[in-house]
Amino acid sequence: MSTVLSPHADRLLPADPGVRDLARRLYEAVAHAPILSPHGHVEAALLADDTPFPDPATLLITPDHYVLRLLHAVGVPLDALGRGDAPADPQDVWRAFCTNWDAFLGTPVRYWFETSLSEIFGVTEQPSAANADELYAHIDALLATPALRPRALFDRFRIETLATTDDPVADLAAHARLREDPTFRGHVLPTFRADRYMDPSTPGWVVAVEELSDVSGIDAGRYSGLLDALRRRREAFRAAGGTATDTGVLDAGSWPLGSGEAERIHAAGLRGEATAEEAIAYRHNMLYRLAEMSSEDGLVMQLHPGVIRNHHRDTLARFGPDSGHDLPDVVAFTRPLTPILNDFGTNETFRLVLFTVDETSFSREIGPLAGFYPTVYAGAPWWFLDTPDAISRYRRAVTDSAGFAKTSGFVDDTRAFCSIPARHDMSRRLDAGYLAALVAEHRLTEDQAFDLTHRLVDDIPRTTFRLPGARS
Amino acid sequence: MSTVLSPHADRLLPADPGVRDLARRLYEAVAHAPILSPHGHVEAALLADDTPFPDPATLLITPDHYVLRLLHAVGVPLDALGRGDAPADPQDVWRAFCTNWDAFLGTPVRYWFETSLSEIFGVTEQPSAANADELYAHIDALLATPALRPRALFDRFRIETLATTDDPVADLAAHARLREDPTFRGHVLPTFRADRYMDPSTPGWVVAVEELSDVSGIDAGRYSGLLDALRRRREAFRAAGGTATDTGVLDAGSWPLGSGEAERIHAAGLRGEATAEEAIAYRHNMLYRLAEMSSEDGLVMQLHPGVIRNHHRDTLARFGPDSGHDLPDVVAFTRPLTPILNDFGTNETFRLVLFTVDETSFSREIGPLAGFYPTVYAGAPWWFLDTPDAISRYRRAVTDSAGFAKTSGFVDDTRAFCSIPARHDMSRRLDAGYLAALVAEHRLTEDQAFDLTHRLVDDIPRTTFRLPGARS
Amino acid sequence: MSTVLSPHADRLLPADPGVRDLARRLYEAVAHAPILSPHGHVEAALLADDTPFPDPATLLITPDHYVLRLLHAVGVPLDALGRGDAPADPQDVWRAFCTNWDAFLGTPVRYWFETSLSEIFGVTEQPSAANADELYAHIDALLATPALRPRALFDRFRIETLATTDDPVADLAAHARLREDPTFRGHVLPTFRADRYMDPSTPGWVVAVEELSDVSGIDAGRYSGLLDALRRRREAFRAAGGTATDTGVLDAGSWPLGSGEAERIHAAGLRGEATAEEAIAYRHNMLYRLAEMSSEDGLVMQLHPGVIRNHHRDTLARFGPDSGHDLPDVVAFTRPLTPILNDFGTNETFRLVLFTVDETSFSREIGPLAGFYPTVYAGAPWWFLDTPDAISRYRRAVTDSAGFAKTSGFVDDTRAFCSIPARHDMSRRLDAGYLAALVAEHRLTEDQAFDLTHRLVDDIPRTTFRLPGARS
Repeated sequence: MSTVLSPHADRLLPADPGVRDLARRLYEAVAHAPILSPHGHVEAALLADDTPFPDPATLLITPDHYVLRLLHAVGVPLDALGRGDAPADPQDVWRAFCTNWDAFLGTPVRYWFETSLSEIFGVTEQPSAANADELYAHIDALLATPALRPRALFDRFRIETLATTDDPVADLAAHARLREDPTFRGHVLPTFRADRYMDPSTPGWVVAVEELSDVSGIDAGRYSGLLDALRRRREAFRAAGGTATDTGVLDAGSWPLGSGEAERIHAAGLRGEATAEEAIAYRHNMLYRLAEMSSEDGLVMQLHPGVIRNHHRDTLARFGPDSGHDLPDVVAFTRPLTPILNDFGTNETFRLVLFTVDETSFSREIGPLAGFYPTVYAGAPWWFLDTPDAISRYRRAVTDSAGFAKTSGFVDDTRAFCSIPARHDMSRRLDAGYLAALVAEHRLTEDQAFDLTHRLVDDIPRTTFRLPGARS
Repeated sequence: MSTVLSPHADRLLPADPGVRDLARRLYEAVAHAPILSPHGHVEAALLADDTPFPDPATLLITPDHYVLRLLHAVGVPLDALGRGDAPADPQDVWRAFCTNWDAFLGTPVRYWFETSLSEIFGVTEQPSAANADELYAHIDALLATPALRPRALFDRFRIETLATTDDPVADLAAHARLREDPTFRGHVLPTFRADRYMDPSTPGWVVAVEELSDVSGIDAGRYSGLLDALRRRREAFRAAGGTATDTGVLDAGSWPLGSGEAERIHAAGLRGEATAEEAIAYRHNMLYRLAEMSSEDGLVMQLHPGVIRNHHRDTLARFGPDSGHDLPDVVAFTRPLTPILNDFGTNETFRLVLFTVDETSFSREIGPLAGFYPTVYAGAPWWFLDTPDAISRYRRAVTDSAGFAKTSGFVDDTRAFCSIPARHDMSRRLDAGYLAALVAEHRLTEDQAFDLTHRLVDDIPRTTFRLPGARS
Repeated sequence: MSTVLSPHADRLLPADPGVRDLARRLYEAVAHAPILSPHGHVEAALLADDTPFPDPATLLITPDHYVLRLLHAVGVPLDALGRGDAPADPQDVWRAFCTNWDAFLGTPVRYWFETSLSEIFGVTEQPSAANADELYAHIDALLATPALRPRALFDRFRIETLATTDDPVADLAAHARLREDPTFRGHVLPTFRADRYMDPSTPGWVVAVEELSDVSGIDAGRYSGLLDALRRRREAFRAAGGTATDTGVLDAGSWPLGSGEAERIHAAGLRGEATAEEAIAYRHNMLYRLAEMSSEDGLVMQLHPGVIRNHHRDTLARFGPDSGHDLPDVVAFTRPLTPILNDFGTNETFRLVLFTVDETSFSREIGPLAGFYPTVYAGAPWWFLDTPDAISRYRRAVTDSAGFAKTSGFVDDTRAFCSIPARHDMSRRLDAGYLAALVAEHRLTEDQAFDLTHRLVDDIPRTTFRLPGARS
């Protein structure tokens, strides 16, 4: 069995030689284009501080739930991966990863790793139990060098714009430091994510409301105050360069409440007495209010419904959230979003990007909604669907219903900084293959395909997310 | 960027040269076969009157909700497309269409337009803001010529049979004029669509019942009278050549009511007092009764569930129905159709063609139902799924479960007369590609593929819809 | 029209010549590998008795619901296929099959038959009305020869392990005779299927409970006794070589009941007084208890939810169950299995293989569950999805989410003994094509593909189902 690690220049391009030739040219036209990353989970402080990364495992394994879940699925306990109470030796974690490298065969995690290991770290061998320590030492040594510091990688990755995800109470200090630093040329934009304030039956809600009051200087002890406080923080995010919000909810229900009823549930929530039904009604109303705010301030609303968080009770208790056991649910959009779309669906300021973890909604709901409402965009395949085959199915299911202009452009959605270029590169290759296939079937001309390959990595995401440089 | 408009001879055929060669031969074998159009929305009066078409925008843009929705999605208001109260200048409408021509990239609407503009109107340039007026003048001049009159196009399109969609109270006079006209050779068949009579909670139901009483001469003021009146009108449709009915409902529930309960709800509906639950029960019962009637008179029952009509309140208020904001819903068949299938599923007179806007039902419900019940046929991909990729998915999801003989054959379902040949041509090309792929994978012989390419445009739709010339 | 029947050596391999060449080599590497059949419906007595098969129709047509449903769908009544009260002449049944041979075009049933007829019976002509009698005589004569006896075919098919499906009260005598017979070299393993004991509202439940008491020697008149009796029978199955259980339920709900409540419903069930809600609660609890037992005794739990049994009332009354009108339902896993996965999801003894008839669950539920829980495996496409295209979709939807190691390996799930090699051959060809495509897209190396083609027919199913020879 060959142990060479050497990503092929034509990887992910179509197998048919005629199609592949054009796909390769379409890919090469954008292979080195700047990266616009309008949605992700890298911290701004990483770049503001520019502290060297600690070690291979802490950088690449322990924080990445994509990696954790697949290793866990083949029997590696999460404490062996650095997630337990007792600290794990990073070299042991790395060894567990290398020893189980075959678990990733056929998955995009392996693909991202192969690209990153090769292009960032110059690794030329497939990880294995045999070479784990050697690889660890090699990468660890590199991480101490200036070329592997976060900002150096930011430049090397050609990232132009990177959106972070931030709580409304975040001080955005790291964003400010970057903006004011003349030596840093990228755009690092905060994204307003108010999930903690939506559901008065969750444990952290009361604390969140208090923190928001403190930070905003507006008493969120009343529902009307909460809305005002959120509005004020949105202003702060806009002032810090933010162009978008993000919301992750179990379902997309958006039925508004009268202010009396909302105040009543709000008060019950503060007393710890909100019922399950009240909490749902409140959450649906909050989704409506966030849309209403977007229709006023123009922050692009991203919506990510349908993830069941923390499915395994014991894993949550022992290893906390984001440890690999969030799972997709059936998702609906057309019915639950009726209130929002009736009231803001043709509002010129409002914009709504819909993401799904249930691919049945691509052709049934997301494409048709984006194909009528000028405010609605079909979000790129996300979590669980951010794989070569699912991305191809997305293009085939959405484009013929909504056209290219109403798709969002790629989002990497990652907390794994080093995977950013590999993920965007994957998307560019797949889009090139898709466009080349359309040319081969005479559904596009070659001219149009070249125009689109550029648009998909530039003006389409720029416009969708109102990024710096957007035309409209 | 090239501005040439010149549909390629091999468009939509598979890219693989080996497969494409056979696909081309399979396509050519039926490219000029007569068109059987068993389901659509062209008016019989169009052909009976044979009045010249008014202008390019009124013919091609304003009435076509496929076009409206995509232009609306990129920000063109519907009043700029001729749908507002104030009449729009057709030349302005046409200009808006040409200016936003790129919105259709990757969609079948563009494909149908390219074919129609090229083959019917001899257009050789891609529409654009620059040539909009010139194209308008060119097409407008052609529309005044005899060759572009409806009947001349009907012949040129090689339409053999065209089914219209008609309310039970329709006088079918235009159908009669065509049937009695020795100079007209096609079959133009009415389709009985009783949607207005199903739901006693809808605004128009009372008026509909009164109109039906008047036209049928049977008092539909009682439920039993309504059924009798519908039966009488079905007889009139059959006498006028009709072979099928069509029903569009929100869901496929078909639980029958006892006559006492149905009479009671009917009376409540006439008083404007039917509750939402009663209205649903009544509608489910009506679906059952329509199946019962089909099991008696042999009109093929077409069922199109799952479309949420008029999703955007303001658009409905300002622009009326059919303005682009009907949207798909989750659709079920197997459970809700249990009453109908238990009672008529093996009845030799009954026939039921199932259409979906939710492609998850292809392999889960429609294929399996058509693969057991001799009465059930898998309807061709319809609205939102009438695209090259969704049609290919339909073939791959249904054929291996139900075989070819239990698929319905293509339906164009269009109110855009000029798109009929382009839509059938698209279907023939895709089926040729599918058959060629099966031959390439040695799942069919070439002989069988040639036999099937003919059957799919001839005896399969003829048999399914009991069209003139059907063998059984 | 050619009438030759001659399965092509490259059938089901990819059409692209470059990909096909590698696919062919991958296929050839495992074409003759022993068959592991961990899930099916062949009776152990067939092999223990080794009685010659009676005639072509009784062997190939009448018992196979895959064949029945498609013939029924094109209008052949089930009594003409040997399923009625009055016995049908097998030669007439065979003639009905041959006459309607075209109904199978495009379906895997035709594919399996072509392979079986050619390879087992040396048939060289497509069945037809013209040659039906001749084919019948040919096959009938062969069936009388020693080479066509069940055990001879078992060897010729290279079956290493065959799992049967058995009721807990089965005496497993045939399994014992085979195990003790030194002239029989295969493994024939019983599978514990306790469906009859799950739902106290079904007609046969009281009788089943009584039979279980008799056979186990434990009074199952109380719920606690039922559990003990099932445990004792599981021990008997394990002693007879069984490694797995199977459960077919309408839904995967698994909420446990306290023992008091379960005893109460159990008693109500014995009195014929369990309500529908109680019966569902009891069934959900039983699913939980079966998982609990698997977590103790290590029998691999197979779960097949979502089949609506006996959809057509009259067909059930006239022809009994398994006559072609079982139909798929919408299926869910992630939510209903929460109790089982919370309690046993990381238990090292427990193992759960999830099968679906609703392919939307591949990427939304089954892949993600198998991609986190070490106990969960993604079951191969089953019933309605055991077709070339659905199998390809499964690979594309599950692998990138869960990797290869967490897929189950192929199961033929057949009661048609002669179709076993054709079904496994189909799977091997499709997997070879999939792996070759991944190599062509540079997502796997050729080395890795060759390794996987072997693993998919050997250590992957062996490990999943804990078959003889499994490494872990």
